[in-house]
Amino acid sequence: MRDKYVLSGARLATMEPGAPYGMIEAGAVAIDRAAIVWCGPEDSLPAEYKNWPHEDLGGRLVTPGLIDCHTHIVFGGDRAGEFEMRLNGASYEEVAKAGGGIVSTVTATRSADLDALVAGALPRLDALLAEGVTSVEVKSGYGLDRDTELNMLRAARRLGELRDVTVKTTFLGAHAVPAEYADRADEYLDEVCLPTLRAAYAEGLVDAVDGFCEGIAFSAEQMARVFDVAAELGLPVKLHAEQLSHQGGSKLAADRGALSVDHVEYATEEDARAMAASGSVAVLLPGAFYTIRETQLPPMEHFRAHGVPIALATDCNPGSSPLTSLLLTLNMGCTLFRLTPEEALAGVTTHAARALGLSDRGRIAPGLRADLVVWDVARPAELAYRIGFNPLHARVIGGKLEVRT
Amino acid sequence: MRDKYVLSGARLATMEPGAPYGMIEAGAVAIDRAAIVWCGPEDSLPAEYKNWPHEDLGGRLVTPGLIDCHTHIVFGGDRAGEFEMRLNGASYEEVAKAGGGIVSTVTATRSADLDALVAGALPRLDALLAEGVTSVEVKSGYGLDRDTELNMLRAARRLGELRDVTVKTTFLGAHAVPAEYADRADEYLDEVCLPTLRAAYAEGLVDAVDGFCEGIAFSAEQMARVFDVAAELGLPVKLHAEQLSHQGGSKLAADRGALSVDHVEYATEEDARAMAASGSVAVLLPGAFYTIRETQLPPMEHFRAHGVPIALATDCNPGSSPLTSLLLTLNMGCTLFRLTPEEALAGVTTHAARALGLSDRGRIAPGLRADLVVWDVARPAELAYRIGFNPLHARVIGGKLEVRT
Ligand SMILES: [Zn+2]
Ligand SMILES: [Zn+2]
Repeated sequence: MRDKYVLSGARLATMEPGAPYGMIEAGAVAIDRAAIVWCGPEDSLPAEYKNWPHEDLGGRLVTPGLIDCHTHIVFGGDRAGEFEMRLNGASYEEVAKAGGGIVSTVTATRSADLDALVAGALPRLDALLAEGVTSVEVKSGYGLDRDTELNMLRAARRLGELRDVTVKTTFLGAHAVPAEYADRADEYLDEVCLPTLRAAYAEGLVDAVDGFCEGIAFSAEQMARVFDVAAELGLPVKLHAEQLSHQGGSKLAADRGALSVDHVEYATEEDARAMAASGSVAVLLPGAFYTIRETQLPPMEHFRAHGVPIALATDCNPGSSPLTSLLLTLNMGCTLFRLTPEEALAGVTTHAARALGLSDRGRIAPGLRADLVVWDVARPAELAYRIGFNPLHARVIGGKLEVRT
Repeated sequence: MRDKYVLSGARLATMEPGAPYGMIEAGAVAIDRAAIVWCGPEDSLPAEYKNWPHEDLGGRLVTPGLIDCHTHIVFGGDRAGEFEMRLNGASYEEVAKAGGGIVSTVTATRSADLDALVAGALPRLDALLAEGVTSVEVKSGYGLDRDTELNMLRAARRLGELRDVTVKTTFLGAHAVPAEYADRADEYLDEVCLPTLRAAYAEGLVDAVDGFCEGIAFSAEQMARVFDVAAELGLPVKLHAEQLSHQGGSKLAADRGALSVDHVEYATEEDARAMAASGSVAVLLPGAFYTIRETQLPPMEHFRAHGVPIALATDCNPGSSPLTSLLLTLNMGCTLFRLTPEEALAGVTTHAARALGLSDRGRIAPGLRADLVVWDVARPAELAYRIGFNPLHARVIGGKLEVRT
């Protein structure tokens, strides 16, 4: 691997303000170890970079590395059997009786050891990386007991060691109330969730704290208690909110300066105003919208009007979004939510970085980390337009160029 | 390559009647050159095959080779720009003024030579093959003039020479009325479409004849004239029918013994009865349904009640379905149309074969062609459940085992 080199002959979608996509035609990027040190029109390349080795990209498109800012890729088992039962007409009761639903994932995750959790997640991570993902968020939340929640986060950290990718971990102990605490959500928080958060933090396993604020999970008041502990530990927060109904989670999250509020189909204009004020990113998850055949669309017009940054993510999880393609997520964002291709691409780069609190990536600019993707397409809109197609030519991760074989 | 060998340690989804998916656990398949000569439980393997070389699959799932029975993968240009214009709020008139719509594809296809058409289609074909497609149908219909229609079919034939895949060609001269024949559809049929069909047939380029029966294309009466020529030439027919409205195309197609009637969202129970009587396959195209955000669901209950065979296909085309994943099509068939995973898998194997008039494939049984896929999953439902994930381990095409690298 070369320490210093120039990517030339590139069409650069820098995602910087100005032209659509921040496009620079006939562009070049100078890379020094893990950092972008210069980018611009190739014919303006400063003399000091001219004798660095050049990698000519033949007019290919270069975008920032893709960022999947909301995933649950660490889990045990799968839910294909439940998927099949439902399509064969089984009721929710019958599925539950057969051990289906999130309970089945919790059971399978609890019975998996760390190695098994890592081995199960790797193919999912590899599918994301193969499409140009260079940073990925991974949540806990299928353990709902101390040991398994910690193991999920350890598995997430391990994934970041095994592959060339930045992994950001999110503690999601407040994902669901486990069966043993049925109707005792507050006791679960006090006895399991909050102590586990402290333990995970002490072990250096937590980059952010999340929860599921919904009628079937935790109330805004309960989430506030979790966020209090996060604040005490100095951890940023985010929240699954207003997915199935309006519960006031986005307002709470915004009030706490959340990095992001996720799902948000049922968010109101007031919520959008609060999120804009706090700078919280609206993370849209069209894979879940598609899988559960939701019809309530997120309030795009309010997010746009108030300037809420919009991100897109896979929400990869075994129940409501068994999706491991961020490119397909781009298409779904456009097709289902009517994002423009430019909004969609910003949603998996610039705004996804912001949703993870990462200020050193998500655009192509000097000083930022050299996480890039080189695509066999001419225009960025093609990335969102095509369905089930991977035009990746190469990934640049921390300055390291990996050409697809 | 070995002439004779046994795939052992396989979980076989034979798609034969009996158990769901025709499953044989701990199964084996004996392959002699291009043919399956035996399949069944491994412990019943006849003595004569026992000393053939064995390829142990370690419990992996084996299905029939996948068949994409409705595609338009040969075309010039793409429509990413139009996709973007629409999402940026352009009206259909503005898109049309900018040269968008099918006209843009016709223009780009006419200006491409044979090599360019082949080169453009190859990445699309390769994406399909990478997910286990072993037979694919390819339609003409973006030339709408004699030379280009012939070139599209020649390109389709060439694809079958360049790759290990069976290509079935379909003449779709009656896809749209070209601009130069605006409001003169019958003249277009007489002066261009029908003479071109005869010329294409004479050149051996046509395996079936198709059309688009719709208010914006051709009436059932006009399609009947095309089918008359097909009958005279001894060619089977199929039809794009009842996609956007009910025009009576499925009844016509069934009356002509069509191999398939495709789209069929607006088909009625009477249509289903006619299709069942003629044995015509209902080819469902969820990628187009998804892309154009259709809400009219195909009448699954009528197709099921009357025993209409149901297939699924990508409809890969640059306008309404820029989709090159048959696995994603399985998921869409289940998620959007509520097919069971077993119906979906039959829809891209057994019934897709039937939609192409191929009686030598689509199941795993002695005497059939050895087109198989080996998957890194345990149960067939996983193929439909996962989204944007390719668990292909190997393809067997005409007896030739190609392990994914
Ligand atoms: Zn989630
Ligand atoms: Zn079609």
